[in-house]
Amino acid sequence: MTAPTENLRYTLAQRPVGLIKPTDFAAVRETLPDLEPGHALVRQVFMSLDPAMRGWVAENRDSYLPPVEIGETMRSFGVGVVVASRDDGLPVGTKVNGMFGWTENAIVTAKDVTPLPDALSLEVALAVFGLPGATAWYGLFEVGKPKKGETILISGAAGSVGSLVGQMAKAEGLRVIGIAGTQDKCGWLVDDLGFDGAINYRTDDVRDKLRDLAPDGVDIYFENVGGELLQIALDNMNTFGRLVMCGMISQYNATEQVAGPNLSRMITKRLTMQGYVMTDHMHRFGEFAQKVGAYMQQGKLRYRADIVKGLDQAPTAINKLFDGSNRGKLIVQVSEPPDA
Amino acid sequence: MTAPTENLRYTLAQRPVGLIKPTDFAAVRETLPDLEPGHALVRQVFMSLDPAMRGWVAENRDSYLPPVEIGETMRSFGVGVVVASRDDGLPVGTKVNGMFGWTENAIVTAKDVTPLPDALSLEVALAVFGLPGATAWYGLFEVGKPKKGETILISGAAGSVGSLVGQMAKAEGLRVIGIAGTQDKCGWLVDDLGFDGAINYRTDDVRDKLRDLAPDGVDIYFENVGGELLQIALDNMNTFGRLVMCGMISQYNATEQVAGPNLSRMITKRLTMQGYVMTDHMHRFGEFAQKVGAYMQQGKLRYRADIVKGLDQAPTAINKLFDGSNRGKLIVQVSEPPDA
Repeated sequence: MTAPTENLRYTLAQRPVGLIKPTDFAAVRETLPDLEPGHALVRQVFMSLDPAMRGWVAENRDSYLPPVEIGETMRSFGVGVVVASRDDGLPVGTKVNGMFGWTENAIVTAKDVTPLPDALSLEVALAVFGLPGATAWYGLFEVGKPKKGETILISGAAGSVGSLVGQMAKAEGLRVIGIAGTQDKCGWLVDDLGFDGAINYRTDDVRDKLRDLAPDGVDIYFENVGGELLQIALDNMNTFGRLVMCGMISQYNATEQVAGPNLSRMITKRLTMQGYVMTDHMHRFGEFAQKVGAYMQQGKLRYRADIVKGLDQAPTAINKLFDGSNRGKLIVQVSEPPDA
Repeated sequence: MTAPTENLRYTLAQRPVGLIKPTDFAAVRETLPDLEPGHALVRQVFMSLDPAMRGWVAENRDSYLPPVEIGETMRSFGVGVVVASRDDGLPVGTKVNGMFGWTENAIVTAKDVTPLPDALSLEVALAVFGLPGATAWYGLFEVGKPKKGETILISGAAGSVGSLVGQMAKAEGLRVIGIAGTQDKCGWLVDDLGFDGAINYRTDDVRDKLRDLAPDGVDIYFENVGGELLQIALDNMNTFGRLVMCGMISQYNATEQVAGPNLSRMITKRLTMQGYVMTDHMHRFGEFAQKVGAYMQQGKLRYRADIVKGLDQAPTAINKLFDGSNRGKLIVQVSEPPDA
């Protein structure tokens, strides 16, 4: 494995207004410095593009992570392989994950990365054992508190988190209904992932279809989208239901604060609504990996990856998350996987 | 004690549209039947008027209690005294509480009532040890999970529930800020009840004043009102804050479903919002009475009662809850208290 000497990375050039534009980022080509003791060079292989990025580039200094500053490398989660090292704990060839950012290569220390089992493919590591899987696991089990026989409704169900939530919920014996934006996605949920039903929010009457698919109401609503779907979910929640607030992608590009749902039913139905972000719970990654690893071995979790090749595609590809054109987990392939 | 033979009660004559009108109720004058074995006659002394009544007379069959039907005696909680009895467990003279309804006298069985200690004044029994106190106790401790040193913001703070929540929170070492609608109420909260601050939502800039009074943000929001105050509270919640959804009086008379607050901060601040109704938790009345009894003995709980005399005043007095003109717990004195 030859260590690269030249690097390409993308910094935030300006704060996006509304949808992200490619010109909101700037390419930086640079020569990599010699490694200092205790450092290692990671060649990034797969890089995750996530809806949360829209929040990370906003001005809001009051969120769960500080904003990416202008001129700073764009933040992202990825997997890669150590290609040069001056840390014996991180030998060349080690597969690792970490917050590498939009860069071909990253200089890291041991505390910046988590080593991965060599047998784990880097694609699976990113699509299932990365943030999406952990986010799905924590939200479903710790916030949603699912009980066998209950009904769960998932918005953004064909997304990287939603599709895993639904499959885990099926594995736990719940009735699972997903909401997605194309017939292709809805078909995938029901035919390939085993969801009990799917609603196309662009072509179906969501209220009518939900009444057909969940005549006894909804016990858990897993929220990735926000907007009108949240009101419909609230109107169909059963007594003592839980609303798991994972994301509200429909609002991330809004330039003004939009109104929310009427919350009267929070009281009359004694509902609990709880927001969470996975970065609070990273110390529980081991528990997650164990549970989700078992599901994987039992063949209970499938994923679909939408892989874009080349780091230079990232500034345009990110909007696939917001126009709904991605099919599965949106990933940038930055370099050739060692396990290919 | 002479048992009455004639009775006045009020039934629901029609479902109110918007604000309740006196003509929504019908007076029924009747002769009381002879008591059957196992029954007792309770002369109601104090009857509680509560915001929840607006929900009870609405058509909504999907709420936590069935609606009061047309022609049925209007539902209410009250305290009274047994004036005739054919149940040895309920001797004449026993003080009791129960859901007697808008009636001067009620025929009950033992399971319909809770006997009260003879030493407890019926006014205190209704204003503190009745639904308001239990509702305040459960919401603050079981839903709000207060920790010493935290800041709590209470809407409808001069109401029967809000004023008790604030005093209990003070007793637990919290910083307590109340929102109310008159200078008189705000003065009472700070000067008499010991709140750390009060905001007059009619005359103050609520956002500015809240920033002054809670510069470090809000950990618990106790919601009795809804509407714009909930958005302001959300915008000031600290990370991992709790929103206790007890009531939304501003919406009870709405004829259309109004929009709610933007909920993005539920996620970014990892908030929990939970609705509850006290009737789910009546089996814990003993725990409540013990804790609140101790507060009372320590002089930590005060209340203010707005007492309207005569059952025939109930149909007009109820709107004092919705126009904010009541000063303290709104009570109808139906007959002379035995402990007067």
